[in-house]
Amino acid sequence: MTELPFDPYRRACPSRTVLDRVADRWTVLVVGALEGGPLRFSHLTQRVDGVSQKMLTQTLRGLERDGLVRRTVHAEVPPRVEYELTDAGRAALEPLRALERWTLEHAGEVLAAREAYDARNG
Amino acid sequence: MTELPFDPYRRACPSRTVLDRVADRWTVLVVGALEGGPLRFSHLTQRVDGVSQKMLTQTLRGLERDGLVRRTVHAEVPPRVEYELTDAGRAALEPLRALERWTLEHAGEVLAAREAYDARNG
Repeated sequence: MTELPFDPYRRACPSRTVLDRVADRWTVLVVGALEGGPLRFSHLTQRVDGVSQKMLTQTLRGLERDGLVRRTVHAEVPPRVEYELTDAGRAALEPLRALERWTLEHAGEVLAAREAYDARNG
Repeated sequence: MTELPFDPYRRACPSRTVLDRVADRWTVLVVGALEGGPLRFSHLTQRVDGVSQKMLTQTLRGLERDGLVRRTVHAEVPPRVEYELTDAGRAALEPLRALERWTLEHAGEVLAAREAYDARNG
């Protein structure tokens, strides 16, 4: 047993399903939106503009299942439900923010490349 | 016009489609596989174990279209086709490797959380 027994380059390695959780557009945006602290569902839909209720529900459930997000129901009337990052979720912030930064820095270049490609191959 | 006019949190921002390109399991693995230098299609299928021909073709075409990968046809008989990272692709390596590292470091914890969640909610 080595210290890092996982290898997502092997087809049967379960780490590939873990990679799927973070290598995902909605994970990047939802985890990023939770950086500042706990948020309610309705605030998340505002922050992550255009996300459907279904997609946000699915993303939050996946993140909760994988231990990146904690869902807390506060015993109030009506009950208040909040979502916040766990330690593992907080640890994912750095690489996810790095991906977001790359996206912001290279979006112009990528969109130009895309346009040129389509002009050549249209 | 600010220096970074893109914002993937806005629904209509085209940077969201750029984020889609990198926040993707196969992008992580294919770009990672190309770190060492140009590879042929057949070598990539070996390196990224289990990727289907169709999925690899689609991933490489997307990466080429977006300017992260360069496809070169060497004039030999038979022609040799190689894929390599462009500068933008190389710049994406760091955040993608960081995501891969997070995955390796947290896979055990995530898989345990998943199992516990399923036991509670099964």
